[in-house]
Amino acid sequence: MAQAQKIRPRAQDFSEWYNDVIMQAELADYSPVRGCMVIRPWGYRIWELMQAALDAMFKATGHQNAYFPLFIPQSFFAKEAAHVEGFAKEAAIVTHTRLRATGKTGAAAIAVDPSSALEEPLVVRPTSETIIYAMYAKWIQSYRDLPLLLNQWANVVRWEMRTRLFLRTTEFLWQEGHTAHADEAGAEEEARRILGIYRRFAEEWMAMPVLTGAKTDSEKFAGAQRTYAIEALMQDNKALQAGTSHQLGQNFAKAFNVQYQTAAGDLAYVWNTSWGVTTRLIGGLIMTHSDDNGLICPPRLAPVQVVIVPIWKSDEEQQQVLNLGGRVQEELRAKGLRVELDARDTMKPGAKYFEWEARGVPVRLEIGPRDVAAGQAMLARRTGGKAPARLEGIAGTVQAALEEMQGALLDAARKRREAHSLRGAGKEQVLEFLRGAGGFAYAGFCGDAVCEAAIKQATSATVRVLPDPEFRSAEAPKTCLWCGKPSVVEAVWAQAY
Amino acid sequence: MAQAQKIRPRAQDFSEWYNDVIMQAELADYSPVRGCMVIRPWGYRIWELMQAALDAMFKATGHQNAYFPLFIPQSFFAKEAAHVEGFAKEAAIVTHTRLRATGKTGAAAIAVDPSSALEEPLVVRPTSETIIYAMYAKWIQSYRDLPLLLNQWANVVRWEMRTRLFLRTTEFLWQEGHTAHADEAGAEEEARRILGIYRRFAEEWMAMPVLTGAKTDSEKFAGAQRTYAIEALMQDNKALQAGTSHQLGQNFAKAFNVQYQTAAGDLAYVWNTSWGVTTRLIGGLIMTHSDDNGLICPPRLAPVQVVIVPIWKSDEEQQQVLNLGGRVQEELRAKGLRVELDARDTMKPGAKYFEWEARGVPVRLEIGPRDVAAGQAMLARRTGGKAPARLEGIAGTVQAALEEMQGALLDAARKRREAHSLRGAGKEQVLEFLRGAGGFAYAGFCGDAVCEAAIKQATSATVRVLPDPEFRSAEAPKTCLWCGKPSVVEAVWAQAY
Repeated sequence: MAQAQKIRPRAQDFSEWYNDVIMQAELADYSPVRGCMVIRPWGYRIWELMQAALDAMFKATGHQNAYFPLFIPQSFFAKEAAHVEGFAKEAAIVTHTRLRATGKTGAAAIAVDPSSALEEPLVVRPTSETIIYAMYAKWIQSYRDLPLLLNQWANVVRWEMRTRLFLRTTEFLWQEGHTAHADEAGAEEEARRILGIYRRFAEEWMAMPVLTGAKTDSEKFAGAQRTYAIEALMQDNKALQAGTSHQLGQNFAKAFNVQYQTAAGDLAYVWNTSWGVTTRLIGGLIMTHSDDNGLICPPRLAPVQVVIVPIWKSDEEQQQVLNLGGRVQEELRAKGLRVELDARDTMKPGAKYFEWEARGVPVRLEIGPRDVAAGQAMLARRTGGKAPARLEGIAGTVQAALEEMQGALLDAARKRREAHSLRGAGKEQVLEFLRGAGGFAYAGFCGDAVCEAAIKQATSATVRVLPDPEFRSAEAPKTCLWCGKPSVVEAVWAQAY
Repeated sequence: MAQAQKIRPRAQDFSEWYNDVIMQAELADYSPVRGCMVIRPWGYRIWELMQAALDAMFKATGHQNAYFPLFIPQSFFAKEAAHVEGFAKEAAIVTHTRLRATGKTGAAAIAVDPSSALEEPLVVRPTSETIIYAMYAKWIQSYRDLPLLLNQWANVVRWEMRTRLFLRTTEFLWQEGHTAHADEAGAEEEARRILGIYRRFAEEWMAMPVLTGAKTDSEKFAGAQRTYAIEALMQDNKALQAGTSHQLGQNFAKAFNVQYQTAAGDLAYVWNTSWGVTTRLIGGLIMTHSDDNGLICPPRLAPVQVVIVPIWKSDEEQQQVLNLGGRVQEELRAKGLRVELDARDTMKPGAKYFEWEARGVPVRLEIGPRDVAAGQAMLARRTGGKAPARLEGIAGTVQAALEEMQGALLDAARKRREAHSLRGAGKEQVLEFLRGAGGFAYAGFCGDAVCEAAIKQATSATVRVLPDPEFRSAEAPKTCLWCGKPSVVEAVWAQAY
């Protein structure tokens, strides 16, 4: 399995460092299919833990899961103008249903059977608004059927030209919520509620601080009335859009004729929302916390939270430390912790430390013969620091260490973000900041897409978010960063993934 | 939502009854995409509960989850001869990656962009042996990397001509396990271990008794050395293959060059297994237990295990019964039960009973004003019977009822299966049985595929399984059912889904 290769340092090349961390921790791998990756068990376990936490929050707010078809008839994309514009050029299209033998050899031995062409081609879902709202038109009759609050966990495909592990792949995994409401207020409230859930998940589970707010019109979802997002700042000072929640207005309801009978007996179109987070979150987690030794995983999402590494020389010592290690493992597991005892006798302790560090395990307990005698273990934290811990009450000690690390990771990430945020600066300074070291630049915005495009042209930065009140600068900017006209809203600019 | 339509009785038309149960319970619905269904929240919740139980069993036996690409390069199918034969004619093939506007209106407004043709077409996975073993070739180097025990939860596509909700759909959800072992014994042991897990799940969770055993060569998986299966008998006396576990030998290892260095330093091919169960299980669950009033769901897999229906006339009574219902709900939830309080004031209790019965909720607690006074509730079981239950200790009473129902459903299904099993009969009697009322016919088999084909021709029944010892007849059949030559193995024949 993993070979002890060196991880290239962040400072040298952030992008290579990122790939090295992924390969070394065995989070994912490249596949033989262009742009598609394999999520390996270590990465998939993080995704499972993310899913469990998010799913519980969705269910606690009244959402149910369902499953809709992978394929969408091509004609459905013609129904919502902005939507097709957004997705038509990156689609995977199924046109045939049979392969046939050609009589040739090797890869040419098989070919598409031209006689199996579909009457109407099918698009592999890039997102499921169209197919889901076609079903909602059937299911929703009356105001009593509203709100309808569904979510699905699924794979989607967008034919991306430049792909990066987790951040941008042709196929990715996600959840997509789709809701229908009787009025705009209901849809607006839902879109904001989900934004709150995404924020809470990012902060409390991923220890990844985020800004929340709305997108500008040029950055919003193809077909949305308003798009909200959570935005995080990575260690290279580029922004990552980590989740979006769309208030779709009645656009899709009109395109798919989703109407309901009001209490008064009239017919009205529903108001929709859709919202999603993807396996991209794993990329965000990596780029928020990790270091030149590999992954740093927040304890609440760590596949293994504690690894016990026994140290021995003689057979007798081996027996002792393995016995004790086994007992400690059981005690920690009884508290619900995810614990491994690394009993391999083909590897030295140092090599084990190296491997588990690369995989981001938060706490390591080293148990040697002298520890057995002293009734203690050495407790090493992935984020630095090593000290003896009494075996009596070890579970409580470890739990406290994990909680402290979880909080410290969030604090550190927030401090780093604020250290790379620029407020109240003049035009030249902001442009230099955006072209240079980078980070979140807060500035006034007149609201004109022309200024937005000009700044993007000059710096390749975009408006990440029109921040919610709690993230706005104490003193509201007075003029637009670009044109100098009065500012109508504060905007946060950054280069982004 | 659900309209109170009548479910056509089983005795009249089993197939229509099956569809009615699904529609009435809102388990699934037809989609606008040919052969693809929508799994609605009630059906999906059953699938989630199935997943949780199976996933825990897989993890307890050392398996980890991962995720592999949806798409498989067409050429991969040319590598294993039997495999391509099995899947080439029911494939969904992606050939293009862009749609373009045509300038026309309506559905014709959009078309596949011919300039976006892929160099090599991609097949939407019908199963993932090829893409997974291509990765194993990269990951497996040494005997220390073995066994490799992975599973994935995913969607797959097979272009089926005749589809039926849950039982046979173009797209379906499943898990597929894929393992690699150093030798044949390891692979054989794994294939049998999984068969045991499938059996335990079918019996202990689904209350669906199954036969276990091997498939004949003509019924085995395309590419397998040996296929094991669990087979259940539905209420219409047709068999349902509910799960398969394949010992793949070295077929795929040789096709994809999956070799490892042995402890002695030689190179050897690995031995593989693959195994899966699908959303078809939900179809099996329906057809094993349900009745003319709708779904009967075994308590361990019921989305809602207990529904509390309050009964009132006056506002004061409403307040009382809702208060009490809420307290009972909390008490039951505290014990980990899945409970709903149906407080709707737009429906009469009788209509609620009807709806929850159709949805298969195992226990209903009716609470009226007199029950409040008497400190009791009426406990009605979905499988029949209604009696007062003291509110003191109600959680224990309900738990006991659910456990008893779970066991009784398995017993009843097993008795029904045995009542429709035929053993020790002569040729004419067996053929008549298979052509007529149907069920499991146990008979001798000479092992010749010619006899197998002849019986299929005569009855449309197939060998469902060569049963494991515990399911074999006390007296082994001496001659082949068809040709009369000596029997080499006992076989179970039935018509099948």
